[in-house]
Amino acid sequence: MIGADREAVLVDPWGRRMGEVFSGEDRLRLERLAVVMWGLDDPMPIDDARRAMADAVAVVTSGWRYGPLPPETRLRAIIDVGGGFAPTIDYDECDRRGIRVLTAAPGFARQVAEMALGMALASAREIVAGDRDMRAGNEAWQHAGNETTFMLFGKPVGMIGYGAIARALRPLLQPFGCRIRAFDPLLADGYLRSLEVEPVGLEELLETSRVIFILAAPMTDNAALLSRAHLERIAPGSVLVLISRAHVVDFDALTELAIANRLKVAVDVFPTEPLAGDHPIRRAPGAVLSAHRAGSVREGMWDLGELVVDDLEAIVRGLTPRRLQAATPEIVARILGRAAP
Amino acid sequence: MIGADREAVLVDPWGRRMGEVFSGEDRLRLERLAVVMWGLDDPMPIDDARRAMADAVAVVTSGWRYGPLPPETRLRAIIDVGGGFAPTIDYDECDRRGIRVLTAAPGFARQVAEMALGMALASAREIVAGDRDMRAGNEAWQHAGNETTFMLFGKPVGMIGYGAIARALRPLLQPFGCRIRAFDPLLADGYLRSLEVEPVGLEELLETSRVIFILAAPMTDNAALLSRAHLERIAPGSVLVLISRAHVVDFDALTELAIANRLKVAVDVFPTEPLAGDHPIRRAPGAVLSAHRAGSVREGMWDLGELVVDDLEAIVRGLTPRRLQAATPEIVARILGRAAP
Amino acid sequence: MIGADREAVLVDPWGRRMGEVFSGEDRLRLERLAVVMWGLDDPMPIDDARRAMADAVAVVTSGWRYGPLPPETRLRAIIDVGGGFAPTIDYDECDRRGIRVLTAAPGFARQVAEMALGMALASAREIVAGDRDMRAGNEAWQHAGNETTFMLFGKPVGMIGYGAIARALRPLLQPFGCRIRAFDPLLADGYLRSLEVEPVGLEELLETSRVIFILAAPMTDNAALLSRAHLERIAPGSVLVLISRAHVVDFDALTELAIANRLKVAVDVFPTEPLAGDHPIRRAPGAVLSAHRAGSVREGMWDLGELVVDDLEAIVRGLTPRRLQAATPEIVARILGRAAP
Amino acid sequence: MIGADREAVLVDPWGRRMGEVFSGEDRLRLERLAVVMWGLDDPMPIDDARRAMADAVAVVTSGWRYGPLPPETRLRAIIDVGGGFAPTIDYDECDRRGIRVLTAAPGFARQVAEMALGMALASAREIVAGDRDMRAGNEAWQHAGNETTFMLFGKPVGMIGYGAIARALRPLLQPFGCRIRAFDPLLADGYLRSLEVEPVGLEELLETSRVIFILAAPMTDNAALLSRAHLERIAPGSVLVLISRAHVVDFDALTELAIANRLKVAVDVFPTEPLAGDHPIRRAPGAVLSAHRAGSVREGMWDLGELVVDDLEAIVRGLTPRRLQAATPEIVARILGRAAP
Repeated sequence: MIGADREAVLVDPWGRRMGEVFSGEDRLRLERLAVVMWGLDDPMPIDDARRAMADAVAVVTSGWRYGPLPPETRLRAIIDVGGGFAPTIDYDECDRRGIRVLTAAPGFARQVAEMALGMALASAREIVAGDRDMRAGNEAWQHAGNETTFMLFGKPVGMIGYGAIARALRPLLQPFGCRIRAFDPLLADGYLRSLEVEPVGLEELLETSRVIFILAAPMTDNAALLSRAHLERIAPGSVLVLISRAHVVDFDALTELAIANRLKVAVDVFPTEPLAGDHPIRRAPGAVLSAHRAGSVREGMWDLGELVVDDLEAIVRGLTPRRLQAATPEIVARILGRAAP
Repeated sequence: MIGADREAVLVDPWGRRMGEVFSGEDRLRLERLAVVMWGLDDPMPIDDARRAMADAVAVVTSGWRYGPLPPETRLRAIIDVGGGFAPTIDYDECDRRGIRVLTAAPGFARQVAEMALGMALASAREIVAGDRDMRAGNEAWQHAGNETTFMLFGKPVGMIGYGAIARALRPLLQPFGCRIRAFDPLLADGYLRSLEVEPVGLEELLETSRVIFILAAPMTDNAALLSRAHLERIAPGSVLVLISRAHVVDFDALTELAIANRLKVAVDVFPTEPLAGDHPIRRAPGAVLSAHRAGSVREGMWDLGELVVDDLEAIVRGLTPRRLQAATPEIVARILGRAAP
Repeated sequence: MIGADREAVLVDPWGRRMGEVFSGEDRLRLERLAVVMWGLDDPMPIDDARRAMADAVAVVTSGWRYGPLPPETRLRAIIDVGGGFAPTIDYDECDRRGIRVLTAAPGFARQVAEMALGMALASAREIVAGDRDMRAGNEAWQHAGNETTFMLFGKPVGMIGYGAIARALRPLLQPFGCRIRAFDPLLADGYLRSLEVEPVGLEELLETSRVIFILAAPMTDNAALLSRAHLERIAPGSVLVLISRAHVVDFDALTELAIANRLKVAVDVFPTEPLAGDHPIRRAPGAVLSAHRAGSVREGMWDLGELVVDDLEAIVRGLTPRRLQAATPEIVARILGRAAP
Repeated sequence: MIGADREAVLVDPWGRRMGEVFSGEDRLRLERLAVVMWGLDDPMPIDDARRAMADAVAVVTSGWRYGPLPPETRLRAIIDVGGGFAPTIDYDECDRRGIRVLTAAPGFARQVAEMALGMALASAREIVAGDRDMRAGNEAWQHAGNETTFMLFGKPVGMIGYGAIARALRPLLQPFGCRIRAFDPLLADGYLRSLEVEPVGLEELLETSRVIFILAAPMTDNAALLSRAHLERIAPGSVLVLISRAHVVDFDALTELAIANRLKVAVDVFPTEPLAGDHPIRRAPGAVLSAHRAGSVREGMWDLGELVVDDLEAIVRGLTPRRLQAATPEIVARILGRAAP
């Protein structure tokens, strides 16, 4: 142990700044909790970091750029604040040595869920297109301006992916009385039911939902999960919110459906970002477009820090960390970009 | 009584169409409940209508264009589906003769509340402006596109007017954990507290809320209630949603604040509609503008009919109607446009 | 007006004491709100009271012992804190003169609803009988002690009477996921549905509910509404909570069913109180018996005063009182004990 | 694999019967999901069971009576349906071999939470004592019978132990508007806050709560956690519900406080069961006593089976089991009765 009575934590967020991840309050909690090693915006020199791992009980970082685990460490957890599980970590070695690998990715859920609801309402009620018409001076008033709108109240909602974002979105939808169904091949049906959502097959979800949220993290087995044929099953005029991630959808097909005004699409994430200036989706009349802005509201980012400090408290006190997402073997097997073992 | 065992109801919505007010299902319920007199989209000839009042227990109409109450009627209720209380009704006479005057205006609440939330999220998260930037090709990505956005979660919310719209909006805001306060000079503080909202003075509301909803019906005593001085008390960058009614606000002042980008205003109602093509608010960069579209979604209008049929059921069965809003003496005294008694 | 700027209110609760109705806080609010005339526990001399009505805008009392309305009054409301609508008031005269008649009876709802849930759980889980066995030393442990118990979770619940108590009980049942249906001949089906409860016929309710709450106020038309034949329709082993009022049930039949252990009855109200010492229900093994204690918890009584002061605030400010229950014509027609008009 | 395409599961509940753990529906789901080996009420011969583990992907049993793990198994999970984590399992070996150890204990939570609420209401409102008085013929009516009762509404509630029972109890208390605080040395403060409960020190909890629930599982470090001195800190007349487990409390002290009527205690679990016939708590006048009946309602037991089948579905499909409670290293270190490693 570094001090007489306090554990040490290595905090090297690089990619992200300290003040971006931690609110002032959480920064203070962190420092009361443990000796903070580094704790600066600049990347820590790798050799220093590896040496520090001999003393630290946890590393907080983005990705993993430190090479193999040092042979002697006190590490009990590696915590990612970049947004997922790093493909460069040796998960088997961590497992053997009792080091938990955790991600703060669920910390994005609240702000992304809020944006997802906002974009869904903007689509269904045509708030964006209606504003555009007001500015062009060709708006239609009252009933005439509502010929293709619909209310969210009572509509069947489908969620593709039922992770942290979906779970944060669910209570926001609750007062609208929607029937909510989910497709998530990573979660057993019984578990979904215990979360008060109905498990459903992908095709049935697409055919019978009026508002569809794509909320699935990219994994080895869900690239372009939503093919053109899938997208064409969605009932015309329905809302499709693509907010996490473009990886799971045939984006060309989605673009064509948006341009044809067959669906009310709302898109926050794109196959390449920044999106090409001449990408045709930029001209889709009914689309709601957003430059990957759902998960980067300043105050929202601090949710990540809250999760991190909450679980560092658990780790330092010898308790089970329960707020961050843990890399279970079943998730590890699906992490994109890992070298073959 | 018209038939051997069924009451009669005169339904003459004019201004509105039958299919606009009543869903197919409610139309059927209505016809099972009572003998429907007229029930057509065209306005009923006034003399016929007055004669029919000798038999009908209730009139459903928009406004009141039938002159003084006929001397002999079986009427127990006059129900307005236009959107408020008609200034042309003789309320004292109704009171003397035990005829309730009711309005279906609360039937607009659900769809307007949904739009209010949608416009608030579109403002706070800059969904409309963000889409405009994507189309212009000058969008800022991720954090750079979130410099002036904020999340609704946890923000202090103020509601000006706490009638049916506010009560429909409150549950939609509940999952965001906002502290909700209301200013409504028509409701006693204790009653507001019983609705789980904190009563607050207008100035304190304006100074301390980050999201403000204007939800007050126009009355004799609230024209331009929100003066320029009031509007200037609002903290810069806050969201102001004007959705019912422009009557209560100094619209020129609001326009100037919107153009100066001092507030994030979202406006669905205007002092004159259609709005002049060259009205400067059309060019306010941060504003979200809507052509009085919050209360005229097709399926949403049927909420009015549901209220009407529910209370006709009560009236026909000799029970107290409890879904429509009743004209209490205190409300009657504030109806706009009534001739001096 | 009594003072230069304050209305006066006559408060003569007799039957009840001031400190029983009003918490210290509400007493203070009351005195800030208006000049309080009388405000003592002893009954006010009737002549004094009638004279005071020339100045008071409201009378707060139990029953109505003042005879006909004085010819000249400023009264706008008569408020009962005894528990119902007095049969001795001239309701037609009040109506003619624009005087509202209001009751604080809904103020009992919260404490009675809590007791109703407590008695239902005590019955279903056999908490009372289980304790009796422990004291007699003949208890059955674990599974053996649960042969005839059941859980409230997910059971069909029926409410007979859907007034203030039922509405206070409903949220307490919500987390148990019960389907809740109600029979209330005073409320239209559409209104019940708007309160998120299913209207149902009495016989279907009795046959298909596993937990039944009798929550109906006594009226001219519901004496012994629940006959022996009705009670026999209830499925054996079901819970029947009789908490308001014995008037509506054939109590002899209920007693026999309780003694035969055919139903798990829980009874707080009796046809005559105190109940005869040798009444056979006192020996019914599975019954839960309570000496009319659901509505007289000290702190709970203050809910009445809160309603009263909230609405006095409305009346004094010229607003519509909305917390107390108003005597509508349809209710007046059903008040027990009124002289024929 | 046993069949061409189906995994096998060894189900040997002994101590419990199949029909006690699994509802008919879940039994069916189980058999559709996997080849069920054994699946009988009688204990499986140990040698047969060990052999079967070569093929089974999971074992469902009570405790662990099979000795060391067989050297060759396909096991991915050991699932306990007895009520906790068996001290006889070699957790380190399971960890090394990637076998999860899981318990269905959270399946008791719903029925125990319901009983906890029922016992708390029975105590606060004196439903049990009130019934006893009715039977003895010495009951006090209305206000006289409520001199020492109180309402649960709005009272400060303290929970000692915030595991599955507490989390099932929390929503049941929600409509009562209680401030809920918890003491749980196994859970970090931040995690408790994320569950919407306030972490609090044990002494503050005892001194400031009006209703206290003891909901802690017995562990190596919480025997008699609640000493006499602790119990004496509780405000007189408060409710103390002891429902899981007697292990954590000085039961003699609790008994004395109950007999002195200083606390309203409600007790479902005892240091030895069956409780001695002459144990003095049997005569404590204000106590509510129950013969360990909170967790053995027939239909309630099926919650265990539901959790088991839900997670077997996950295991068979190669997904992470998320409904049962997993033995984390921090919990393993606290399991009662484990041999020193």
